[in-house]
Amino acid sequence: MLIEKTVSGFVEELASNSPAPGGGSAAALAGSLGAALSIMVCNFTEGKPKFSDVQGEILQIKQQGLGLKNDLMDYVDADTNAFDEVMKAYRLPKETDDEKLLRSERIQEATKQATLLPLKVAESCVEVLKLSLRVLTIGNPNTACDAAVSGVTAYAGFQGAIFNVKINLSSIKDEAFLQNVRDKTLVLQDEADKTNQLILARAKEVLG
Amino acid sequence: MLIEKTVSGFVEELASNSPAPGGGSAAALAGSLGAALSIMVCNFTEGKPKFSDVQGEILQIKQQGLGLKNDLMDYVDADTNAFDEVMKAYRLPKETDDEKLLRSERIQEATKQATLLPLKVAESCVEVLKLSLRVLTIGNPNTACDAAVSGVTAYAGFQGAIFNVKINLSSIKDEAFLQNVRDKTLVLQDEADKTNQLILARAKEVLG
Repeated sequence: MLIEKTVSGFVEELASNSPAPGGGSAAALAGSLGAALSIMVCNFTEGKPKFSDVQGEILQIKQQGLGLKNDLMDYVDADTNAFDEVMKAYRLPKETDDEKLLRSERIQEATKQATLLPLKVAESCVEVLKLSLRVLTIGNPNTACDAAVSGVTAYAGFQGAIFNVKINLSSIKDEAFLQNVRDKTLVLQDEADKTNQLILARAKEVLG
Repeated sequence: MLIEKTVSGFVEELASNSPAPGGGSAAALAGSLGAALSIMVCNFTEGKPKFSDVQGEILQIKQQGLGLKNDLMDYVDADTNAFDEVMKAYRLPKETDDEKLLRSERIQEATKQATLLPLKVAESCVEVLKLSLRVLTIGNPNTACDAAVSGVTAYAGFQGAIFNVKINLSSIKDEAFLQNVRDKTLVLQDEADKTNQLILARAKEVLG
């Protein structure tokens, strides 16, 4: 598993001349860093009398953050696996007409899965962005910088995931699937951009 | 060393209730992911007859990318170490006037180092952004998505590093130091923002 490699080993693997892991797994990891930093802020706010009025929301954010972190960490490997399935489908035999048809169907199916995976990463990153904004607003100000970094890493994870959705869409033929994913992407993009802008504005207020 | 932990172990450590590692190390790691992905694009462009006219520049970018990746990986640990030094200084005794003076000097010195470190991270991330833009423009189009993710992760690393510079500046008293770092930060911010915009525009052209 990629996430059981050392950090330096993972970065080396990313830089290497093998097609996977690539940008998709890196995007999921960026999102995981964002989730982890929002959890960190919760840990510095939880149980402190000074922040007694926000304890309920902080515990809820921490719970959500833990779920998102776990999902995003799973997606680091899942993205590379989904990419490998596409490569496998492209290597199927294509001598006879039957083989050609089967290969083409398998490529379409694997590419759809490889599109839906980064779409999930993007969705999770939007949720992380919302948590970043909340912890930057109500969390312990000593960790405001960590909350702000949570936001920018989650936004990078979001953008990276959307790039991966788009590159895969370019080889999909199913019009209904295309339209459905494009619609979802537009809604997510709008939400991510707006939340990111609010995070940057708040970070400017707090950090200068 | 943090970068010798597993990826999942590093993310857990980031999320934990210890103050370090925090956003500073996460920013350096985001920058490392960016550098690694630019190197990956070079590896898919190097030696391919189709891209024969850009081989010289690709080799140069790869070389620069390798240096930046190694620096940024070192900064993951160095940022946490610099933060620990600040914490150590704050824990110095402050009973007598002499102790108070020494403690205050040590805090200032450690905080300056903890400011200069993320400034180096920010500088390296700007260099990575320039490489991302070039590989997105001249590299193998099959890895255009990885080049684009290189850009967004490097930009997140840049923004995160600048947040860390700013939070540390708030406790520094040396006016000349403050002015010098603020000036450098403004120049870097402008360069990072412009390069990021060019990367996003190019990614839109290429990926849709």
